[in-house]
Amino acid sequence: MTIPIVSITGKSNTGKTTLIEKMIRELKLRGYRVATIKHTIHGFDVDREGKDSWRHKQAGAQITVIASPKRATVIEDMDVDLEIAELRDRYITGVDIVLSEGFKGNPFPKIEVFRPEIHPDPLCTKEDNLIAVVSEAQTDRGVPLFKPDDIQDLVDLVENLYLKKSTL
Amino acid sequence: MTIPIVSITGKSNTGKTTLIEKMIRELKLRGYRVATIKHTIHGFDVDREGKDSWRHKQAGAQITVIASPKRATVIEDMDVDLEIAELRDRYITGVDIVLSEGFKGNPFPKIEVFRPEIHPDPLCTKEDNLIAVVSEAQTDRGVPLFKPDDIQDLVDLVENLYLKKSTL
Repeated sequence: MTIPIVSITGKSNTGKTTLIEKMIRELKLRGYRVATIKHTIHGFDVDREGKDSWRHKQAGAQITVIASPKRATVIEDMDVDLEIAELRDRYITGVDIVLSEGFKGNPFPKIEVFRPEIHPDPLCTKEDNLIAVVSEAQTDRGVPLFKPDDIQDLVDLVENLYLKKSTL
Repeated sequence: MTIPIVSITGKSNTGKTTLIEKMIRELKLRGYRVATIKHTIHGFDVDREGKDSWRHKQAGAQITVIASPKRATVIEDMDVDLEIAELRDRYITGVDIVLSEGFKGNPFPKIEVFRPEIHPDPLCTKEDNLIAVVSEAQTDRGVPLFKPDDIQDLVDLVENLYLKKSTL
């Protein structure tokens, strides 16, 4: 079974990360295991200077894994900018759904966070596989509209579309 | 082909990380791709408070992947403390060798860094799959002995044992 991906999109400072936090909490309350994939063009220097793992990477290790009893952290150099699906297939297992943030132009179902007072123009159309809009504003994009606090109904939609096991 | 693992062992403050750095550099000069696995019982809070990825984890994501054009970082919560071989099989691909640090009691070939002026007693015996000792001291453990700066000869040994392709 391929793990479903739902992409949280929207222009900058519209509240994507806040929405993802709320969705994770609600999905977990319903018993689902969640992974997230965040894309950033700025890179992410996760490691701290002087740490052993940083020294391994600096010396030229292509992949460094730091393992502790409760957590594993993997830092891997890439030759290419991987797509969401490639990242999922490479790193993600044992979860029910992936929420992604920050990938532009991906083919996966999208929830757009829309704040016209910050950015008047929307980002996606229904042709971009838009399945819902989250906004305080009244906006008709031909898909369901949810208020930012209306997490239960939004997660109901996601659950019905991608997580409900088929029953006889 | 299973990727070979060589474990750099030794008591605390004997210079394990420094040796790994030198070995990585020498192996890379010879054209090999290297990964490292570091085990720490203290955990490793790689992520920074307030960062989006930290917020994803705090909200309950089991796995968070942060991807940029040159690097991927994966932070995964574990139910169990995985063995080196399990971490290799789960996360490591596309390299020629794995150097590990900090796993006690593993079955893989070991290079012990030994500084009797700090810790008089050695850590491993030949029964622990010890293949070499790195020390400034004269010590006979029934395996080859290298000075800490004698990286070329040490890497020759590793290369001959685990990296040389068989030729007709």
